[in-house]
Amino acid sequence: MTTYFEGIPKIQYEGTQTINPLAFRHYNPDEELMGKTMREHLKFAAPYWHVMRNELSDPFGVGTALMPWDDQSNSLQNALNRVEVFFEFLDKIGIDYYCWHDRDISPEGKTLDETHQNLLKVCDLLEAKQKETGKKLLWGTACLFSHPRYAQGAATSPNADVFAYAASQVKYALEQTHRLGGEGYTFWGGREGYATLLNTDMKRELDHMAALLQMAVDHAKKIGFKGQFYIEPKPKEPSTHQYDTDSATCLNFLREYGLLDHFKLNIETNHATLAGHTMQHELDVALGANALGSIDANQGDELLGWDTDQFPTDVYMTTQVMLRVLKMGGFTTGGLNFDAKRRRESHCLEDLFHAHISGMDAFALGLKVAAKIHQEGRFEEFVHQRYESYSGGIGAQIEAGTATLDSLDDYAKSIEAPVLQSGRQEMLENLLNTYLFGK
Amino acid sequence: MTTYFEGIPKIQYEGTQTINPLAFRHYNPDEELMGKTMREHLKFAAPYWHVMRNELSDPFGVGTALMPWDDQSNSLQNALNRVEVFFEFLDKIGIDYYCWHDRDISPEGKTLDETHQNLLKVCDLLEAKQKETGKKLLWGTACLFSHPRYAQGAATSPNADVFAYAASQVKYALEQTHRLGGEGYTFWGGREGYATLLNTDMKRELDHMAALLQMAVDHAKKIGFKGQFYIEPKPKEPSTHQYDTDSATCLNFLREYGLLDHFKLNIETNHATLAGHTMQHELDVALGANALGSIDANQGDELLGWDTDQFPTDVYMTTQVMLRVLKMGGFTTGGLNFDAKRRRESHCLEDLFHAHISGMDAFALGLKVAAKIHQEGRFEEFVHQRYESYSGGIGAQIEAGTATLDSLDDYAKSIEAPVLQSGRQEMLENLLNTYLFGK
Amino acid sequence: MTTYFEGIPKIQYEGTQTINPLAFRHYNPDEELMGKTMREHLKFAAPYWHVMRNELSDPFGVGTALMPWDDQSNSLQNALNRVEVFFEFLDKIGIDYYCWHDRDISPEGKTLDETHQNLLKVCDLLEAKQKETGKKLLWGTACLFSHPRYAQGAATSPNADVFAYAASQVKYALEQTHRLGGEGYTFWGGREGYATLLNTDMKRELDHMAALLQMAVDHAKKIGFKGQFYIEPKPKEPSTHQYDTDSATCLNFLREYGLLDHFKLNIETNHATLAGHTMQHELDVALGANALGSIDANQGDELLGWDTDQFPTDVYMTTQVMLRVLKMGGFTTGGLNFDAKRRRESHCLEDLFHAHISGMDAFALGLKVAAKIHQEGRFEEFVHQRYESYSGGIGAQIEAGTATLDSLDDYAKSIEAPVLQSGRQEMLENLLNTYLFGK
Amino acid sequence: MTTYFEGIPKIQYEGTQTINPLAFRHYNPDEELMGKTMREHLKFAAPYWHVMRNELSDPFGVGTALMPWDDQSNSLQNALNRVEVFFEFLDKIGIDYYCWHDRDISPEGKTLDETHQNLLKVCDLLEAKQKETGKKLLWGTACLFSHPRYAQGAATSPNADVFAYAASQVKYALEQTHRLGGEGYTFWGGREGYATLLNTDMKRELDHMAALLQMAVDHAKKIGFKGQFYIEPKPKEPSTHQYDTDSATCLNFLREYGLLDHFKLNIETNHATLAGHTMQHELDVALGANALGSIDANQGDELLGWDTDQFPTDVYMTTQVMLRVLKMGGFTTGGLNFDAKRRRESHCLEDLFHAHISGMDAFALGLKVAAKIHQEGRFEEFVHQRYESYSGGIGAQIEAGTATLDSLDDYAKSIEAPVLQSGRQEMLENLLNTYLFGK
Ligand SMILES: [Co+2]
Ligand SMILES: [Co+2]
Ligand SMILES: [Co+2]
Ligand SMILES: [Co+2]
Ligand SMILES: [Co+2]
Ligand SMILES: [Co+2]
Ligand SMILES: [Co+2]
Ligand SMILES: [Co+2]
Repeated sequence: MTTYFEGIPKIQYEGTQTINPLAFRHYNPDEELMGKTMREHLKFAAPYWHVMRNELSDPFGVGTALMPWDDQSNSLQNALNRVEVFFEFLDKIGIDYYCWHDRDISPEGKTLDETHQNLLKVCDLLEAKQKETGKKLLWGTACLFSHPRYAQGAATSPNADVFAYAASQVKYALEQTHRLGGEGYTFWGGREGYATLLNTDMKRELDHMAALLQMAVDHAKKIGFKGQFYIEPKPKEPSTHQYDTDSATCLNFLREYGLLDHFKLNIETNHATLAGHTMQHELDVALGANALGSIDANQGDELLGWDTDQFPTDVYMTTQVMLRVLKMGGFTTGGLNFDAKRRRESHCLEDLFHAHISGMDAFALGLKVAAKIHQEGRFEEFVHQRYESYSGGIGAQIEAGTATLDSLDDYAKSIEAPVLQSGRQEMLENLLNTYLFGK
Repeated sequence: MTTYFEGIPKIQYEGTQTINPLAFRHYNPDEELMGKTMREHLKFAAPYWHVMRNELSDPFGVGTALMPWDDQSNSLQNALNRVEVFFEFLDKIGIDYYCWHDRDISPEGKTLDETHQNLLKVCDLLEAKQKETGKKLLWGTACLFSHPRYAQGAATSPNADVFAYAASQVKYALEQTHRLGGEGYTFWGGREGYATLLNTDMKRELDHMAALLQMAVDHAKKIGFKGQFYIEPKPKEPSTHQYDTDSATCLNFLREYGLLDHFKLNIETNHATLAGHTMQHELDVALGANALGSIDANQGDELLGWDTDQFPTDVYMTTQVMLRVLKMGGFTTGGLNFDAKRRRESHCLEDLFHAHISGMDAFALGLKVAAKIHQEGRFEEFVHQRYESYSGGIGAQIEAGTATLDSLDDYAKSIEAPVLQSGRQEMLENLLNTYLFGK
Repeated sequence: MTTYFEGIPKIQYEGTQTINPLAFRHYNPDEELMGKTMREHLKFAAPYWHVMRNELSDPFGVGTALMPWDDQSNSLQNALNRVEVFFEFLDKIGIDYYCWHDRDISPEGKTLDETHQNLLKVCDLLEAKQKETGKKLLWGTACLFSHPRYAQGAATSPNADVFAYAASQVKYALEQTHRLGGEGYTFWGGREGYATLLNTDMKRELDHMAALLQMAVDHAKKIGFKGQFYIEPKPKEPSTHQYDTDSATCLNFLREYGLLDHFKLNIETNHATLAGHTMQHELDVALGANALGSIDANQGDELLGWDTDQFPTDVYMTTQVMLRVLKMGGFTTGGLNFDAKRRRESHCLEDLFHAHISGMDAFALGLKVAAKIHQEGRFEEFVHQRYESYSGGIGAQIEAGTATLDSLDDYAKSIEAPVLQSGRQEMLENLLNTYLFGK
Repeated sequence: MTTYFEGIPKIQYEGTQTINPLAFRHYNPDEELMGKTMREHLKFAAPYWHVMRNELSDPFGVGTALMPWDDQSNSLQNALNRVEVFFEFLDKIGIDYYCWHDRDISPEGKTLDETHQNLLKVCDLLEAKQKETGKKLLWGTACLFSHPRYAQGAATSPNADVFAYAASQVKYALEQTHRLGGEGYTFWGGREGYATLLNTDMKRELDHMAALLQMAVDHAKKIGFKGQFYIEPKPKEPSTHQYDTDSATCLNFLREYGLLDHFKLNIETNHATLAGHTMQHELDVALGANALGSIDANQGDELLGWDTDQFPTDVYMTTQVMLRVLKMGGFTTGGLNFDAKRRRESHCLEDLFHAHISGMDAFALGLKVAAKIHQEGRFEEFVHQRYESYSGGIGAQIEAGTATLDSLDDYAKSIEAPVLQSGRQEMLENLLNTYLFGK
């Protein structure tokens, strides 16, 4: 049998004592915590775009990634060849789910129709491979940002014909996601934004964006797709301003256009920090609106101002993420999709494995720490106590909506000046370290 | 008659040829443009806090501002004395409106009741001075961030008694705003946010914040206050994360809690840039929701990460602001409030005048340029043409909601590949310079 | 005669009254100010890389720029064809100087030797075109960042063979710069930096970087090249940390390795702001060390964290730049090189002209304003007065190095507590506006 | 015996199993690693300013810190009282060193002379307490930024009399540091910078700053002070631009003015990140110049743009810091000074202990991890191998300075095209996690 990753074994759990870099120290897929296996908790997914199509170029240099199987052509055959490689990768790394954009998996044709036919043919193979291997599609999406026709937006293009092209792509991408049993469908508004307000009618563009999302919802109903729709917030890059800036902005948009029942958020760590928020904040905003859907698991460099999409290795962050996933009762349709790329200097095949191992182990460790925190409930108890004054008396009236400015004024005049308890931030930060490094 | 600003004349318009630094070169209050005087277009307001109470301290040093009239005490008499100084300032600088927080104008007393009585007494004098001078109150607000009791929030405090104190303050501040004929009432959530999520229940805090706003709306109805309520977005500082992050976040909050009919936004330039947005962007987001209420006219230093609240002197920015004010048909209840402070090095009385002159002239100039741009309509025409494909045919169907993914797919397959027109950003930037520097 | 820019006339000065977008409003090349023509003051240069080779791709999309003359091949003939286009552009836009990287103008060959031969052949043509048109080379440089071999640095590569390749390229680029009469030679350390300190010996890499610069200095002497060497500061991108971070860092490096006599700085506005500095600051740091050599004239978006390399249209900034150029007595070897690219949406040939017109007019206007400020001396006089206490008495002793802690302690005890004059920042900002918008 | 921290025991090491929040889990002062005790490795110091004088105010609110011993007066007696409290704190927390500014420990008097006498009297008590307890002074410094006279700088003030006052303060602060056996003396240029270049002669100000440093060096020689002088880099805040921006800028300054032999750097984590650098980077820059002196141990919030001075709890960071301290053979005169403050919400006495425990344990853990990494040498070995090509052949010639552009061109033409090894960033990040979480 052909192998594309010669010398790379199936990555195994070997525990913390191993010095084998091509092994898991923490991710033991069938180990149970809180009644579920790690595999079920984490629902790792690999993105076709980074694993198979990212050549590791940057704005100042061409690609460096070694891809010996790829003939660099835009042919359908080359696209089909890549599928084989990708499933070998999924098998060896031990990841159960994957995600794609239409243009990652199949090439643009000479006509729109040929483009769609290419997609269908690759999806034939994907369907076969899924059956053969048991791998599953976490979500699909359409690439509406790379082609020059989308340079000024897709749904938000000033050119209605471009909108039509985008709609056509979404139709096929959605239908193929459905056919492959995809658990969700994502909109990442790569070019939905503006370069300058000098030439932009923002309100009109947002109306158009909402129109496309509504059409997708209607089409899903028509074809029977029951998967979850997601929007992925990002504040900037490639455009100067992206409309889907952050969680709150996406929720505002969904509320304004009556789409909140149909969409949840796919939240990416690096996009959170580009927007000036912690990942925890973005997750909590989504959770507050019951709109946390799925996670693009990566991390950024907070000292850099672009989307570095690094592999997630900060265990402080993975712990915080998993705490919130546990708190909401686990993923339903969503999962942890490694929307992360190796550094341009990590150009070897082996680096693909090192990178995913680093992210999978960081999340496995984060899960274990989070489970302990969740089960012991010390943070939760602290927070609960902190707001106790709202659980009765005047606080309960405030929460019930029965207090007024007048009634509260009377109350305030009747009490001793309030005295605050300490917020104890430093003690809590230390407590977090005791969970992370306690033993 | 006593004067506190000896040697400072009433600032007059002298035109661009003057070399007198204590004169206006562009702000000619009674000059008409587009059917209104500059005074009516600009509706300048001075904030009591910066003009009278800002000692120009910073985190590394005590105040430097010379305030010979101020005995540094917390007495009511000192508070009353300041009123006289402030109205002389308003007179000499030629500003018609002002704004206050309750604690700027009157001191905290030994009891809550004494605190409220202090406020009433100062408002007696303010009312008299308004009648005497014709000056008007643009908006009032309560200071819910400086006192240690608000260290963990006011409406979002974990302590319900603190909420009650805040409600009591809002009641009096709102009533006195009403009594002084204030055109609006502002909530700036100075401490409504968090220092760390480790000790915070964000959802519960947001529920409480909405409760206070709802009470204020109800109380306004009760007392007959018809002025406009505003929220002022700001992303961070003093807290690590402020709930009223930016325009979109505020709108999301208002929509979620059913408050959008009762609130508009008071947008500040420096808060826009702290949130990573241009002022233009924040204004357009508000305009798109018909929620632009008033403006805190200042500017930040985009290379610094805190709220520098500098006087607005960038005429590119003032032009963009005034373009949007003209586009919405002018202010109704709102105006241009100079929420700006002199640098700590500009400690002399004279600097108060230099600073306001710089801001008033920059906005007057911005108004003149904006009026010309607005009237000639070249930018507007460019933008209109850019979206022309949505004014008929398939574009109109998209806007009407009659297109579907299927119908657009059919259409897309039937047309030639779309060709984009240039966005012409550089030409438009040059065109803007021709308006600013054309002659 | 073939024309590549059909319909684009030679751009002419038409004054501020014109509504022709393809005309200069301020740049009148032969108009004299302060004894020199605008052409001599400004010394505009066009970079081959942006004008001829920038396809306007970005990390999320392929190129959009229309280049009908370019067959997309890597052939020498294609390279030679571009030279003709470029000189037509220089002629029509009216720019006298240009700059290149070796790989912009000539393609990588199959062998290193073939690569060098390609360079020589293109330089044959460039030399002929220079003679024919009178256009001149401002500076040349070697592209040591795009090829995968430089993925981990050129002079700072961990691989000494890569260093040798870089040295070979520098030798030829320097020799061809010399042959074409280039007034300077620039090092921009595109890959000289690191992705992570986990794998980096920073000190050793800096030693190697200094070694290459020393070799270039020695080679220049050997071949008789008397042009000026430049380093171009930039803090980050493409690498996580670039060694040539900012002006002060470059000066520290040059001092440490004894290279300060041989190098000046080529300062770019967008790199200044990426480093958290104003352009004015970076220029003043360089001026303070007598090391301001040349300027990459562009501007960034301070709200974005990557190098947007926009055309310079902010007249506040161009005025400040030209003030400093006038203050140092004008450029000697350096000039204003438009290291700027059109937005990806501005893909038409015409946009190349709009973009350069916007930058040239903004700098011409900046020059005119700066000349007036320089000649009237009001800012200079203010600054001079501000430090007057150092022109005599104790201040003069401090400057002369004759004061000691003891003598100053005695002096301090003998005087009244010092009283500061106001820094008058707001008055000065207003004064700047009177120069910019005075008439 | 009076106690100021009732209910707070002497903090003890109890190991990782304890659930006592007022105990060390990792810091076991007398435990040995690599031949030294943890106490000797870490050399913790407490800063008088944060522990005793920080009221926890911020730009939007007054202080919240409980300080029952403090009568809020500016009296000498109050100052002397605080000394007792501070030494009880040092005793209970188990920190051996401390640091001060002159104005932290003793109040400004009515005259300069009285100010100096106040300092001497407090230092009498400090000397006695040091003898009694064995606590030691890590470094002293003068506060040249808080008083209004320094609003426009101290050594860089435009007013020479202010320079004289600063010099007088430095004389006394230096002499008292000497008398108390201080191991170092620090310059933190709080106001040495500018608010705007419009009113600033940067070069002249830098000349003056160098003059003061030279005087301090001369005075130290005169009085026999052999301690180490430090400069502490910081890029901005309170001023718009601080002259001591970062390590490289400070080194450039020291080289330019011939002061590099007399100064080392005191590097603070939060100042590193405000300058856009990692702490690791700043330490490596200093180490490369043999100029790493001491460390201000805190951490910032990279999503905020001001100096939050948080307690250092990120063990990734403490590990990287301690790796570098081990690599340079440990501190000589310097140490780990907690230049960190509690959050404004952590206003209780107990929080002082929680905060320092969090930082001390994070550094103790960092030390243990760093020692293991240092001793096993796996990272070092990786880096060594990566540059192996410079240890012989052409690489060695480059390092020896015997290669030329010509010789390297010949060499390059003679070899096969170089092939890079992977930089293996992801593998190394994973390896770091195995050290941090390996067991
Ligand atoms: Co993503
Ligand atoms: Co991303
Ligand atoms: Co404001
Ligand atoms: Co502000
Ligand atoms: Co450049
Ligand atoms: Co650039
Ligand atoms: Co410090
Ligand atoms: Co600090």
